[in-house]
Amino acid sequence: MRVMGVDPGLTRCGLGAVEGRPGAPLTLVAVGVVRTGADEELGARLVGIEAGIEQWLDDVRPDAVAVERVFSQHNVRTVMGTAQAAGIAVLCAARRGLPVALHTPSEVKAAITGSGTADKKQIGAMVTRLLRLTEMPRPADAADALALAICHVWRGGAQHRLADALAKARNPRR
Amino acid sequence: MRVMGVDPGLTRCGLGAVEGRPGAPLTLVAVGVVRTGADEELGARLVGIEAGIEQWLDDVRPDAVAVERVFSQHNVRTVMGTAQAAGIAVLCAARRGLPVALHTPSEVKAAITGSGTADKKQIGAMVTRLLRLTEMPRPADAADALALAICHVWRGGAQHRLADALAKARNPRR
Repeated sequence: MRVMGVDPGLTRCGLGAVEGRPGAPLTLVAVGVVRTGADEELGARLVGIEAGIEQWLDDVRPDAVAVERVFSQHNVRTVMGTAQAAGIAVLCAARRGLPVALHTPSEVKAAITGSGTADKKQIGAMVTRLLRLTEMPRPADAADALALAICHVWRGGAQHRLADALAKARNPRR
Repeated sequence: MRVMGVDPGLTRCGLGAVEGRPGAPLTLVAVGVVRTGADEELGARLVGIEAGIEQWLDDVRPDAVAVERVFSQHNVRTVMGTAQAAGIAVLCAARRGLPVALHTPSEVKAAITGSGTADKKQIGAMVTRLLRLTEMPRPADAADALALAICHVWRGGAQHRLADALAKARNPRR
């Protein structure tokens, strides 16, 4: 399963793709950021984010896209732009018929480090270890996008196993 | 000048277009809403909003688009979806190279009624009067979209006159 993670933002939108399945080693497919200038108009920035994500979807061809769920409680000054970048990532994926999942930051932290309150450095260290990289992906937004993708591979796997178990329980001869 | 106003929302995205210039009567071009189902996935809803806005831009062919500026302070439960619908409206307009303006609710209220704290009924009544309609546009989101468009015609006009005056002051022989 190939998953593309999106850590949304207008100034830096982190993008990272991994391939794997639960219980097997994960592989890095790609990692990077799409940037737009803080001095650009909002419309130009959103067009830039869309173009960057479209290019990534063309190149990476993921089976699913995982986007960080944005809350209004945090970073009030920038949260609207973050929500809009996230919306464009969801839009681009849905237009292609790709399944889209939203994961909260604490779900991602808990999946990757075992603690919902882990800091950025700890996330970066675990992403580096899980993907057997020689150094931590930078900037932090890129590492966070990989963490989202890894979280989705694992959670998706758990959800698939649960669905399989339920299907078998309903129809034991399957 | 033909302006399309967008009162963003996932469940009801109000759209309204007017034609006019400051100091002259305004004309209604079109008014309506794009709706998506609360039971649909976010991706499907955003795709529906994009398709609806694209259709409107094709039909109305505005010279500019005015979108309500969304704040995180209000309606915390729905504000993320509202911000994302607004982002898609800005994206659709910017992709076509159309100028996009963001106006706050109180700017719109002040422009239309003279009071930044006017209620929805007062906005609806003034929109009905200014466009010489026989009844108030419904739902309220549609009337709010027309109010945004009217606000932009008037504010845009004031901004153009200011820009002209400044240009003349710099180059008196123009």
